[in-house]
Amino acid sequence: MPLGDLRPDPVALLARTAYLELTLFEAASTVAARASDLADRETVTRVASAILAQHTALVDLLGEQGQVATEAMQPYVAEVDRYWRRFGETGWHESVLTLHLTTGLLNDFFAQLGGGLPRPLADRYCAVLTADIGQESLVGVLAAAVAADRRMTSRLALWGRRVVGDTLLAARAALDAVRDPDGHPTETEERRIEPVLNDLIAAHTRRMDRLGLTA
Amino acid sequence: MPLGDLRPDPVALLARTAYLELTLFEAASTVAARASDLADRETVTRVASAILAQHTALVDLLGEQGQVATEAMQPYVAEVDRYWRRFGETGWHESVLTLHLTTGLLNDFFAQLGGGLPRPLADRYCAVLTADIGQESLVGVLAAAVAADRRMTSRLALWGRRVVGDTLLAARAALDAVRDPDGHPTETEERRIEPVLNDLIAAHTRRMDRLGLTA
Repeated sequence: MPLGDLRPDPVALLARTAYLELTLFEAASTVAARASDLADRETVTRVASAILAQHTALVDLLGEQGQVATEAMQPYVAEVDRYWRRFGETGWHESVLTLHLTTGLLNDFFAQLGGGLPRPLADRYCAVLTADIGQESLVGVLAAAVAADRRMTSRLALWGRRVVGDTLLAARAALDAVRDPDGHPTETEERRIEPVLNDLIAAHTRRMDRLGLTA
Repeated sequence: MPLGDLRPDPVALLARTAYLELTLFEAASTVAARASDLADRETVTRVASAILAQHTALVDLLGEQGQVATEAMQPYVAEVDRYWRRFGETGWHESVLTLHLTTGLLNDFFAQLGGGLPRPLADRYCAVLTADIGQESLVGVLAAAVAADRRMTSRLALWGRRVVGDTLLAARAALDAVRDPDGHPTETEERRIEPVLNDLIAAHTRRMDRLGLTA
């Protein structure tokens, strides 16, 4: 775990991810509400529910750190909202793919970063981020759509590239904020960050592969 | 409990309310996402989470009745969606009031109707519908808005009348569907239904009063 010796500020990391999970929950709820099939809607609602549980658990951890969650999250609102706005309006299946890929990338990334928190907080934080939120069920929805309409393949492959690009930039920005808000990374630090990003990309490629999509 | 001797079809009642709670959850999530204040957003998100738990509990009860929830809910989609469409686009505080009043009216109403289910299903169903979903926190949000801007009072009072009208119609339609899908109520039945609607209106009036709004 090459990020494990970074020492992120607990409140900053908890607050940033608590707000991120809140926006992921809202994204998931919107995807659920837009589903034309009731079974799909139910599936995505369950995912939304699991993400909400992650948000709530992080809010509780913030409370244990003596923080009022809404105040602690405030500094991250503008940056995270900007991240989401970049995706704009999309078709429904694109929005399911966004949900699948962003939860995968971001939970992976922050779980790695959380390894540098003091114990036992590190373990509790990582347990929240690595919880099963039902991604397999999203794979099911997407695989069915790809099987039913082959044109979906190129549309979703294109979209997946968009999502991974924007999300890695967001992860990178979060990393720089944790490491040193003002400085530029030294060459040594760059060498440490690179394998982390490569791991994220490898996991992303496996997600795309499972859907038969070129990453 | 004047409705207690109606014998609603368990699957029909569970499915209708499961779908209704799903749409209430979606309404709550939308209200949360539209909140401009992060503390309000957190408050409404908790309410959304509690409503989602009601939906999930009803889906589980449907499962115990040997039903696939998404199939069982399907017959109620069009009617419930029509109900929500009537409210159209509103200001944010109106949408919070809608959430507060509709959850109050509908949970009250269906809990009464659920009294006629076979035991122990009746008790479990009523426990779900009468669960605390955090309405006090919605009262807090609305009371603060009314206190901060007196013009809000007349806007919200007007809106509350719209909500209660449409919701009582929806409750009445649900009641007719449970009782007898084709027949018209006899005079005796009308006399039994009337006190139920009066009770719902009385509870609604108390909700409005607490906010300093004319019902």
